[in-house]
Amino acid sequence: MKTCLGVKYEPNWNSVDSRPLPAWYDDAKIGMFINWGVYSVPSYYSEWFWYWWKTAKPNQGIVKFMEQYYPPTFTYADFAAEFKAEFYDPLKWVDIIEKSGVKYVVLSTKHHEGFTMYPSKYSFNWNSVDVGPKKDLIKYIYALLAGSDVHFGIYHSLFEWFNPLYLQDKANNYTTQRFVKEKGMAELYEIVDMYRPDVIWSDGDWEALSSYWNATHFLAWLYNDSPVKDSVVVNDRWGSDATCKHGGFLTCQDKFNPGKLQKRKWENAMTLDRKSWGFRRDASFDDFLSMEELIETLLKTISYGGNILINVGPTSYGTFPPIYEERFRQLGSWLKVNGEGIYATQPWVHQNDTVTPKVWYTAPKADKKAAYAFFVDWPDNNELVLGAVSGSSLSGVALVGSNKTLTWETSGSGIKVTIPPHNIKEMPCLWAWAVKLTFK
Amino acid sequence: MKTCLGVKYEPNWNSVDSRPLPAWYDDAKIGMFINWGVYSVPSYYSEWFWYWWKTAKPNQGIVKFMEQYYPPTFTYADFAAEFKAEFYDPLKWVDIIEKSGVKYVVLSTKHHEGFTMYPSKYSFNWNSVDVGPKKDLIKYIYALLAGSDVHFGIYHSLFEWFNPLYLQDKANNYTTQRFVKEKGMAELYEIVDMYRPDVIWSDGDWEALSSYWNATHFLAWLYNDSPVKDSVVVNDRWGSDATCKHGGFLTCQDKFNPGKLQKRKWENAMTLDRKSWGFRRDASFDDFLSMEELIETLLKTISYGGNILINVGPTSYGTFPPIYEERFRQLGSWLKVNGEGIYATQPWVHQNDTVTPKVWYTAPKADKKAAYAFFVDWPDNNELVLGAVSGSSLSGVALVGSNKTLTWETSGSGIKVTIPPHNIKEMPCLWAWAVKLTFK
Amino acid sequence: MKTCLGVKYEPNWNSVDSRPLPAWYDDAKIGMFINWGVYSVPSYYSEWFWYWWKTAKPNQGIVKFMEQYYPPTFTYADFAAEFKAEFYDPLKWVDIIEKSGVKYVVLSTKHHEGFTMYPSKYSFNWNSVDVGPKKDLIKYIYALLAGSDVHFGIYHSLFEWFNPLYLQDKANNYTTQRFVKEKGMAELYEIVDMYRPDVIWSDGDWEALSSYWNATHFLAWLYNDSPVKDSVVVNDRWGSDATCKHGGFLTCQDKFNPGKLQKRKWENAMTLDRKSWGFRRDASFDDFLSMEELIETLLKTISYGGNILINVGPTSYGTFPPIYEERFRQLGSWLKVNGEGIYATQPWVHQNDTVTPKVWYTAPKADKKAAYAFFVDWPDNNELVLGAVSGSSLSGVALVGSNKTLTWETSGSGIKVTIPPHNIKEMPCLWAWAVKLTFK
Amino acid sequence: MKTCLGVKYEPNWNSVDSRPLPAWYDDAKIGMFINWGVYSVPSYYSEWFWYWWKTAKPNQGIVKFMEQYYPPTFTYADFAAEFKAEFYDPLKWVDIIEKSGVKYVVLSTKHHEGFTMYPSKYSFNWNSVDVGPKKDLIKYIYALLAGSDVHFGIYHSLFEWFNPLYLQDKANNYTTQRFVKEKGMAELYEIVDMYRPDVIWSDGDWEALSSYWNATHFLAWLYNDSPVKDSVVVNDRWGSDATCKHGGFLTCQDKFNPGKLQKRKWENAMTLDRKSWGFRRDASFDDFLSMEELIETLLKTISYGGNILINVGPTSYGTFPPIYEERFRQLGSWLKVNGEGIYATQPWVHQNDTVTPKVWYTAPKADKKAAYAFFVDWPDNNELVLGAVSGSSLSGVALVGSNKTLTWETSGSGIKVTIPPHNIKEMPCLWAWAVKLTFK
Repeated sequence: MKTCLGVKYEPNWNSVDSRPLPAWYDDAKIGMFINWGVYSVPSYYSEWFWYWWKTAKPNQGIVKFMEQYYPPTFTYADFAAEFKAEFYDPLKWVDIIEKSGVKYVVLSTKHHEGFTMYPSKYSFNWNSVDVGPKKDLIKYIYALLAGSDVHFGIYHSLFEWFNPLYLQDKANNYTTQRFVKEKGMAELYEIVDMYRPDVIWSDGDWEALSSYWNATHFLAWLYNDSPVKDSVVVNDRWGSDATCKHGGFLTCQDKFNPGKLQKRKWENAMTLDRKSWGFRRDASFDDFLSMEELIETLLKTISYGGNILINVGPTSYGTFPPIYEERFRQLGSWLKVNGEGIYATQPWVHQNDTVTPKVWYTAPKADKKAAYAFFVDWPDNNELVLGAVSGSSLSGVALVGSNKTLTWETSGSGIKVTIPPHNIKEMPCLWAWAVKLTFK
Repeated sequence: MKTCLGVKYEPNWNSVDSRPLPAWYDDAKIGMFINWGVYSVPSYYSEWFWYWWKTAKPNQGIVKFMEQYYPPTFTYADFAAEFKAEFYDPLKWVDIIEKSGVKYVVLSTKHHEGFTMYPSKYSFNWNSVDVGPKKDLIKYIYALLAGSDVHFGIYHSLFEWFNPLYLQDKANNYTTQRFVKEKGMAELYEIVDMYRPDVIWSDGDWEALSSYWNATHFLAWLYNDSPVKDSVVVNDRWGSDATCKHGGFLTCQDKFNPGKLQKRKWENAMTLDRKSWGFRRDASFDDFLSMEELIETLLKTISYGGNILINVGPTSYGTFPPIYEERFRQLGSWLKVNGEGIYATQPWVHQNDTVTPKVWYTAPKADKKAAYAFFVDWPDNNELVLGAVSGSSLSGVALVGSNKTLTWETSGSGIKVTIPPHNIKEMPCLWAWAVKLTFK
Repeated sequence: MKTCLGVKYEPNWNSVDSRPLPAWYDDAKIGMFINWGVYSVPSYYSEWFWYWWKTAKPNQGIVKFMEQYYPPTFTYADFAAEFKAEFYDPLKWVDIIEKSGVKYVVLSTKHHEGFTMYPSKYSFNWNSVDVGPKKDLIKYIYALLAGSDVHFGIYHSLFEWFNPLYLQDKANNYTTQRFVKEKGMAELYEIVDMYRPDVIWSDGDWEALSSYWNATHFLAWLYNDSPVKDSVVVNDRWGSDATCKHGGFLTCQDKFNPGKLQKRKWENAMTLDRKSWGFRRDASFDDFLSMEELIETLLKTISYGGNILINVGPTSYGTFPPIYEERFRQLGSWLKVNGEGIYATQPWVHQNDTVTPKVWYTAPKADKKAAYAFFVDWPDNNELVLGAVSGSSLSGVALVGSNKTLTWETSGSGIKVTIPPHNIKEMPCLWAWAVKLTFK
Repeated sequence: MKTCLGVKYEPNWNSVDSRPLPAWYDDAKIGMFINWGVYSVPSYYSEWFWYWWKTAKPNQGIVKFMEQYYPPTFTYADFAAEFKAEFYDPLKWVDIIEKSGVKYVVLSTKHHEGFTMYPSKYSFNWNSVDVGPKKDLIKYIYALLAGSDVHFGIYHSLFEWFNPLYLQDKANNYTTQRFVKEKGMAELYEIVDMYRPDVIWSDGDWEALSSYWNATHFLAWLYNDSPVKDSVVVNDRWGSDATCKHGGFLTCQDKFNPGKLQKRKWENAMTLDRKSWGFRRDASFDDFLSMEELIETLLKTISYGGNILINVGPTSYGTFPPIYEERFRQLGSWLKVNGEGIYATQPWVHQNDTVTPKVWYTAPKADKKAAYAFFVDWPDNNELVLGAVSGSSLSGVALVGSNKTLTWETSGSGIKVTIPPHNIKEMPCLWAWAVKLTFK
């Protein structure tokens, strides 16, 4: 599927920004973000462990943790030896991915620590084949998803906190690009060649301009000549001048969830563990979003035109912690019922209801005469008031997943839907429900 | 609370068996079992890792795991160095314990590996203070529970798979007792002195007779002279001639759940992870009992007069995995609603219903004119048929946790209870429900 | 060779002291002491590393070393994992032993740390088979020396610095003997049964009386009933009341070298590394005795009737450091020339010369009309004055290892020996030389 | 001291070869080579451990060693964590260096493994500050020698066995130079800037031409513009076309000792451990050159116009093994006596004697009327026959270090020197001796 036959992109923002986003991405709506790296070994505090340990004003909790359990001479690089991925089973991962209902995956190839999760030519003895797992942690997920309807994508950090080549370019006010040419972008080209991602989720861009990163040159190559030129989608983190402005879909900030429609396609990358992207051994049960919270966030994102990218932090031994697996499988069960109102939808006239709080709308792209109203609080007396729906244009109302007949009547400028009694066994799902609205 | 003033128990089964079980135990009904040890480091396969690695016909999965990730010279003892308990927070543990609704805890002091979780005098350099955590892992839980209504208990294995003193006694056909005197029972006396447990959950007894273990001598001392003589409860694993026959409450076998009334008090010690008592890093989400399965097992145990002891396997770094914490907190929320039909109850006339499957009965000790019928399947048409309840003697029926009025009518030899519609928001709880029956 | 047919020793000092020392020991004269254990891993400061790290007033160098290179939670037991003995080659050891000219070996089976270098039944998971080397470090040396003229002996520490059973007996003022019965002496009986040593070099006795250690019972058994009853030799370290007084040969103190004749047989156990018995990684070249110093010490010991026990500290990887091997092989080359004046000798009328310093005498047991005068300073003008030798009784003088003719004349009450010129190539050896004196 | 005022070297061999060797180097005669790196951790087989472990036809001893003591997933990079240099004391090293009599030191900054012994910008997380010792291992030796008469030099390997950038250039038949620009030569420039070496001992050049390495560009910069342009000396290992032909002094091959005069200045880089440049834990005493062998090799090198570079392999814990320290201190004591015939000398008319084997000549540059004849076998009858010395031109003969008078007479076409008796105490030294010849 060629998106734009004959177009040749130039290495400037005007040109590369002009490329339309491949359609699959907006239809996909839900992705899984997988943040995995050497930080999964200490698995304490967050994936920014190294930074907050060694920065000028360090985190005292981390400092004390290291003082208490490691010798003074221990460095972050020493953690790599304990990253073994003994139980890493890509088939198991892919099963969870597929059962969860996500339509794309963004897998970390390198975080700000600089450790590559594949045998990079540019990261001698600081990659997952030379040290630690002694395995290419990208290729199996990539290969196993090839035959599925889940798109494969990668996360890649442009900068590396402590890479001396980067620090030297930085000390030179980014007038030199040694790091970019020898490591940063060199690896990104290598990744595209090796793993043909449909999503490139760039990060770690913010300290320098996109010109330092040679970002538009990369994107012009990616769109013109790379093996994924027709299918690839990128985000906006390509330099301090680019974020929330240039590139593909906008991420703007972590857990971006603007609560109103956006001119450009956007994504809400968020976490199940409120406090970290990487696995934390010290996470409590209440650090994890409940299913209610997850579904509500999902609805608040989709209804405003965003995609949601839900993060999991696997363990250093290569597994999804069961609490994550539970959330993803429960999400899958919910989407099995409600996916018709999520995938391949677009924002409706209204995004949330004008009268009842916590009601969100979506509209299927394929059926102009339908919409979905999702609600997370079961209505008192089973009467759902929808202020944004005009009774005059309505031809039908149904509870998604139920075959019981709903009735409705005009109520103010909107309608009041009455849902017949459903006992617990008759409920289509838990956590949130949808009524499908059909218009004349 | 002296149980039996003036009684002096003799070191024989007739005498020690004659001691009444302190009353708190039967009222408590629900306990938490905590299996934690060096096996929490490999945390693979199960807490029998060492045995199945080194026994005559070893488990090939374990053998391969060790071959793949460890040097050939690696021994089980070497795992101890990686047992760090970095995140062990007894206050957090006690919070989970108290919120879970359990009324007693059984904490492992030593498993068949012989590693003591406290500074035993008889286990030089093979205990949790000399190697590994460098901490007494018993004393804080013991101390923190002192002021609570949760009783503190301990698990202790009599035998040790590979202790040469034990193997020598065994080779001598148990005609010698060097192991018993120098390690096995020496430690049990020490534990009682140090941590004053209200439960002693003995194990690892089955290869030898109780006379080898000097079991009745220990119990006579325990009941006559120990600091816990009035409150302590023991189980039945005191020798191959004792299990399911002598001692305190009967455990008979792991996950003992006989499905009928027993003459003696019994306990169902069971696991949330179907496959292991110890933490397994390789556990999948579907290895864990769902809440529905847990509550059903609980009901099937309590209704037949058993106690249930629900196991958690903490991690080597000292935490409850979140999936366990979730289960225990959900159990607590369920017991907050339904505890009146669980604690301090006794079996009712019927234990399960004669007509409707998966209905179990209990009766409060304090109110001879009441009973509870628990059900895990919400009835079709909201009509619950209770074949075991005679309408003629009935004065009232209520759904526990709901203030909606239930109606009932005679149905065959029993009754049919009609539960008015409860939408999801009006439900007292999930997973299982109780109707309280009041009799004339 | 039964030493005393029909004698039955009683467990008291009078009786066991009455046993004659088997003759081989006095003839052997030179032994090798091998101090090897977990302390060979830190191999810093000395084999007392653990003690000086954890005692009330610790050594600050050790404390800082541990703070700098190990986590705060690291314990001494953790060092065992790094004790691998990868290059341990008993054939190589035995080759050095045999080439060195020593006639017995004393190999450590357990030092004050309590770690047994063989699979003791009484030291579960704190022995060289369960942890660390995963090898029996005693049996091969024992077996390989069986067919040689070098006697096999063992070192064994009675007490253990930090064994809680010992500390409890100590806290009880040694009125209890739990440690002695369950560990200390239990292991010594086990060692005799397993490895049949001809020397038992006891140590670590000084904090308690020999009655606490049950020493005389052990010795009575050893002399009456053990498999080595006819050949075994023991030292004197069997309790604070025994050292330098009871038992077999006297050691009195480390590096005991009294400089005068003793009534009882004695031994000078000394080290090549001035500062340690165990291997020290931080040893400098000048910490080692030179050959001149070693030979002088040897002569000063033998001439006064002592045996010399020369210590080596092998590495944790199982080798003799080359500097030790060099010393022992050079010693062997020296003894090859001069052994006739060392082995099977006894003190002469004089032990050192009355006129010339640093001249020591020995006399062969087998030839009453001969003596040897050893000297370490080559005499000025090649004229050696021997004040202790009466010219009137002398029939001949020869330089051992040379066939050049020596002349002598009366000088004062002694003689003056003139040694003809020997250039460096004609010298029989380096470091020290002997003239053999033959009497009428 | 400008060597060549106004000269500007061009980046071609003709030009850079035209630079005269700074004079200090030929006068220095004796250097110490220090091979230290990650290979000092396994310290088994040799510093080529990694190569022979992982090459197509690996060394079976290494393969078995790794199988026996390490997990299958262990990589060479994992050894770095055990490289701790705990006892590294640069003051101690410098003391040995200075006492040994060497006049320059060549310290390894990077071997073929690619691990830099200083914080290289081009070797992120594969250098001695990021992992292992966590120390700059070059700067202290460099700084401490600054004020001494010992010149500081460095060893540097151009290629790296397993660096993927190098392997890619190699796969490209060296038509690309990515490795050279980003790592290989980048580090060499960095080293010169940071540590200002007077010797650059290049190695690992042989697989590619000097043009691949940009060697002449580096040398032109080194000679024209570097901070050491006037004092620096380089060897000849700058490409397969350069060795034994271009650059500064010739090394031709390891342990190069041609046994005849060479047109260009050359060096014999050799080892005290016959089998390895790096420390071997498994080295036996007889693997080390004796003093006799070392001095003989030294004489055979100096007399033919070479320099000798004597290698030591320090331990991973940062020390010179005592056997090395002993050799170097004994060498120093020998040079203290005989240095006048070694330093600042040049080959004499004859290099070895025409009649007596193992006699070597040198001639002091500062005194045209003198020469030294060194001999390692003390002559029979103390009569040294020198066939190469004409009696007619001779004015005097003396034994260096002795004040005894020597006599001589014509013998054939040469002379016979008679050395008066020296007993062992009167000898100037051991191992080899010199007679100084003075001519009319």
